Amino acid sequence: MPKHIILDTDPGIDDSLAILLAIASPEIVLDGIISVHGNVSTEQTTKNALSILELAKATHVPVYKGCDLPLVKESLLSPETHGNQGLGYAQLPEPATKPQSAYGSDYLIEEIMSKPGEITLVCVGPLTNIALAIRQEPRIVENVKEVFIMGGAIQQPGNTTAQAEFNTCVDPHAAHIVFHSGMPITLTPLDVTYQCIFTKDDLNRLLKIDSPVTKFIADSTRFYMEFHDEYQGIAGCAINDPLTMALTFMPGICDYQNLVVDVDISSGVGLGNTFADFYNYEKKKPNMKVAMGVRPRVFMELFLERMEKLARGIS
Amino acid sequence: MPKHIILDTDPGIDDSLAILLAIASPEIVLDGIISVHGNVSTEQTTKNALSILELAKATHVPVYKGCDLPLVKESLLSPETHGNQGLGYAQLPEPATKPQSAYGSDYLIEEIMSKPGEITLVCVGPLTNIALAIRQEPRIVENVKEVFIMGGAIQQPGNTTAQAEFNTCVDPHAAHIVFHSGMPITLTPLDVTYQCIFTKDDLNRLLKIDSPVTKFIADSTRFYMEFHDEYQGIAGCAINDPLTMALTFMPGICDYQNLVVDVDISSGVGLGNTFADFYNYEKKKPNMKVAMGVRPRVFMELFLERMEKLARGIS
Amino acid sequence: MPKHIILDTDPGIDDSLAILLAIASPEIVLDGIISVHGNVSTEQTTKNALSILELAKATHVPVYKGCDLPLVKESLLSPETHGNQGLGYAQLPEPATKPQSAYGSDYLIEEIMSKPGEITLVCVGPLTNIALAIRQEPRIVENVKEVFIMGGAIQQPGNTTAQAEFNTCVDPHAAHIVFHSGMPITLTPLDVTYQCIFTKDDLNRLLKIDSPVTKFIADSTRFYMEFHDEYQGIAGCAINDPLTMALTFMPGICDYQNLVVDVDISSGVGLGNTFADFYNYEKKKPNMKVAMGVRPRVFMELFLERMEKLARGIS
Amino acid sequence: MPKHIILDTDPGIDDSLAILLAIASPEIVLDGIISVHGNVSTEQTTKNALSILELAKATHVPVYKGCDLPLVKESLLSPETHGNQGLGYAQLPEPATKPQSAYGSDYLIEEIMSKPGEITLVCVGPLTNIALAIRQEPRIVENVKEVFIMGGAIQQPGNTTAQAEFNTCVDPHAAHIVFHSGMPITLTPLDVTYQCIFTKDDLNRLLKIDSPVTKFIADSTRFYMEFHDEYQGIAGCAINDPLTMALTFMPGICDYQNLVVDVDISSGVGLGNTFADFYNYEKKKPNMKVAMGVRPRVFMELFLERMEKLARGIS
Repeated sequence: MPKHIILDTDPGIDDSLAILLAIASPEIVLDGIISVHGNVSTEQTTKNALSILELAKATHVPVYKGCDLPLVKESLLSPETHGNQGLGYAQLPEPATKPQSAYGSDYLIEEIMSKPGEITLVCVGPLTNIALAIRQEPRIVENVKEVFIMGGAIQQPGNTTAQAEFNTCVDPHAAHIVFHSGMPITLTPLDVTYQCIFTKDDLNRLLKIDSPVTKFIADSTRFYMEFHDEYQGIAGCAINDPLTMALTFMPGICDYQNLVVDVDISSGVGLGNTFADFYNYEKKKPNMKVAMGVRPRVFMELFLERMEKLARGIS
Repeated sequence: MPKHIILDTDPGIDDSLAILLAIASPEIVLDGIISVHGNVSTEQTTKNALSILELAKATHVPVYKGCDLPLVKESLLSPETHGNQGLGYAQLPEPATKPQSAYGSDYLIEEIMSKPGEITLVCVGPLTNIALAIRQEPRIVENVKEVFIMGGAIQQPGNTTAQAEFNTCVDPHAAHIVFHSGMPITLTPLDVTYQCIFTKDDLNRLLKIDSPVTKFIADSTRFYMEFHDEYQGIAGCAINDPLTMALTFMPGICDYQNLVVDVDISSGVGLGNTFADFYNYEKKKPNMKVAMGVRPRVFMELFLERMEKLARGIS
Repeated sequence: MPKHIILDTDPGIDDSLAILLAIASPEIVLDGIISVHGNVSTEQTTKNALSILELAKATHVPVYKGCDLPLVKESLLSPETHGNQGLGYAQLPEPATKPQSAYGSDYLIEEIMSKPGEITLVCVGPLTNIALAIRQEPRIVENVKEVFIMGGAIQQPGNTTAQAEFNTCVDPHAAHIVFHSGMPITLTPLDVTYQCIFTKDDLNRLLKIDSPVTKFIADSTRFYMEFHDEYQGIAGCAINDPLTMALTFMPGICDYQNLVVDVDISSGVGLGNTFADFYNYEKKKPNMKVAMGVRPRVFMELFLERMEKLARGIS
Repeated sequence: MPKHIILDTDPGIDDSLAILLAIASPEIVLDGIISVHGNVSTEQTTKNALSILELAKATHVPVYKGCDLPLVKESLLSPETHGNQGLGYAQLPEPATKPQSAYGSDYLIEEIMSKPGEITLVCVGPLTNIALAIRQEPRIVENVKEVFIMGGAIQQPGNTTAQAEFNTCVDPHAAHIVFHSGMPITLTPLDVTYQCIFTKDDLNRLLKIDSPVTKFIADSTRFYMEFHDEYQGIAGCAINDPLTMALTFMPGICDYQNLVVDVDISSGVGLGNTFADFYNYEKKKPNMKVAMGVRPRVFMELFLERMEKLARGIS
């Protein structure tokens, strides 16, 4: 029986690839998408989500608009990583479809509470919507089946500041709320996503299929690759979000540790830093399962096969 | 034409007096009450709001349950100030009435958006509900008529830590959101409320009327007076919240300054501290009107008269 | 018997006036001056101290060069308040005299330890030298007679940030060390110094005497008055440091409270804020005597008389 | 020509082993030892340094007493790691020798300034003395030959809090001063020291020689091993400080990266955390060389051989 998934996302290049992977994977049913600020504004991420669904001929998936600002901090968007529209060099047509009228966090609460124990929540952007939902309806904590989060950098350096990963850096207060909520969390930090580099060879393999899907992947990731090369000296690009999506149905891609994880919400240099208390000096119960090891080519093979299958169906 | 008021509150002794003042004042219509955590749990403040309305024979006013936790910080309740049930030595019967089914911040959004420019919001507890509503529906900022907030201590010492007033100390992050939201705020800080001491003489004047209302005021404030005496050496008690309510229809009780006010959300000793940039070193636009001067006996006379009137009607 | 005083200072306009007041006052003997960074660099404050002593024909007072950087924070000088050379529009000739070879904090330790219970320390700049001395030789805490500090703003707004006074803002960590050292401190915060405004009338009274001293006072304070007018709307200038000096021999100018005072060393908006725990929520022992009330004209009359006397002697 | 070394240390079990290694190594001359608070009080670390020198028949090495408190933070000693006297189960007789009269940081300044470019400073405790010396005489920065520091945890978890290593946790402000001073620093963080585990087998090899030296090593490390086992599940003990000493004359034991390293001095959960800006987002010049890779058995073999040689000479 496939998993029912709600995806909270700020597409975003690798967010888009996570949507495509969800569409292409029979192990899961994508019940809905909630947009959030992050890589670009919520206005734009909502449009992008709709456009990607149109590209993938999956317009049956409803899109709900979420929060446009971090909970407490000032807004921090990332056009230098994802391009002004958030999709790198890809230019998708304006979506013909529209978002639903319900607000993102209201939809999330409604779904989880009406289907207790059935919803898998996948979060690949700043956690603002989830934090708002938890404070509005604390019972979703017990009624969500599981939560997969792309975010944080445990022993890996940050990708936004020296210590902070982008999603937690953008809204550390929201991450703090979610991390300490009691939800059954599996975290996919940069420690594993930065091991999964999508290379030009991978791209060339996809480009053997002539399809709007492969063209989109090429145009969007090219921008991302240039960024990684300039800032981090990485050839290729880390596609963080599809890895998180893949773990929902193929958990064996990673190895996990049960850890006590916190996020720094001070006003200091550590703001947004996620860290684990490995030796558990504070004697607390682990609050999440963290992917700390990964088999990169197992994941990449899965991702490429699914993209090939999707591309072949759409031309 | 009377003002339409929504009261966000955590009764609480002086919160209860603010409700009674609202009921007793023809200048305003109390459209609804939203409960919040603070002096005691939201479970209890909701019950207390209902009980007070029953006491005042005002059960037509709907009560909506709000958030039970601070936005980001751990919960900080205050039974030592307000007693275990939050009403001092007063013991009201379990309410026969029930709260509405809608969630507090949803109700707030619905009301403001459906009556643009008409709703006066009065907040006398931690600002969690308001912060949640602003992030969920930013347009309430432009559509609320005005916002009166009891909170903060500008030049006055704090009443919870050396620097922090209780409401902002309990949820500084929520206060930060509201203060910087652009809402048209009038702040009533401790600087003026601590000038308005409800004394034993005031109480004795009310007790000349035999009524459940005066009995309630006596039983609740007696506890509060003991607290003020022990911790702050004050004879009598500061009734912060009714002053805020009174300003909605009798603004002349106070003198105001337009100020740039901020709240400290660092992890340091200043957490929850509200302060004004009096010389405006940062060259910002004032974000609120702050009551910095007060005519205490004008207020107290108003309060006593209204309580007398209410008490006479209820026996 | 006159008090033996060591003055730690960063002249600076009002610092210079404190030196002149010390020279002009028979109640005290100025044993030595230690320079510190602050208004301008230590290089410059050392020169200025020597120049002022030459101006006042008091070159018998030795000057010791102190620390040129705040303890932990980055350097923050204040040429916009005191002019590039630190003396406003006054231009004193290069000093012919030289500072002593011993380092400032070494001299301080040596003096206090060799004359236990005899030295009155007056600090009117950032507290870096004193903090260094305390950590190097903790026994000075018990052996200093008393410590008068110009610094902090308790209920008064800051003069550098919304909350912070200049001296504590420049080196909050040093202030933290000194405040918590156990030394017998009398603090002169902005709460009283900003009540003591040196006006143009006061200046005109001095200018009736033709002397390099009155000329210096005129040239230096004119700059200061312009600053106060522009930033704080004050006509005249607060002469903080001479007030502190005056309290060493005429304590009755002020009223005092024994308070628990701390300084914020977090990374937040409160950095450098000095505050008192008036209600003593933390149940600590008062760590200083704080001047909270002042008789401004008593002080100003004293200051003017002493300056007149000094000016008459030097022409 | 042997290197001239001044060792700043808080013995401490592994500190003692660093002293013994220095004595036993012909490549270096130990010019002097400065004591500092840390594992135990400065009173005790001074005695311990003297006792170790007596044990090693090296009483010609002068010992100078340094600072007894962290620069700004409250004192944090560590008897649970090093035992009440700081030497585990080892009990050395009261030293017959005495420390020198000069203060630690004064001695440091004097030595560096009188032998420019000749002194190698090795710091294996909290950096308080070095920070004080830098502020008192900034020219030591240019005149010290090189500085080897044991401290910090870059990608490794902390050994005191989740993020902080003991030496930087005890005095983060001092570390901040030293790290940003411009001194030519080589850092030995836990990332490499925790790879160098002194095991029971290593100990047994030493115990084949009957000597007060091997007995001391056995008695002191036994305590340390029990601690590591209980808190961190490590069999054996990390001997951090001798590794740092060894790098002064056998740098090839480690691999190094030139990094931008900072230490968190906020009031938040990251206090004392040392971190590198690996991708150099801040575009700063590297401020130190950091040992990030190590050949553990090369080091351990060196350490064991030197201890054997020393033990054989002392019986």
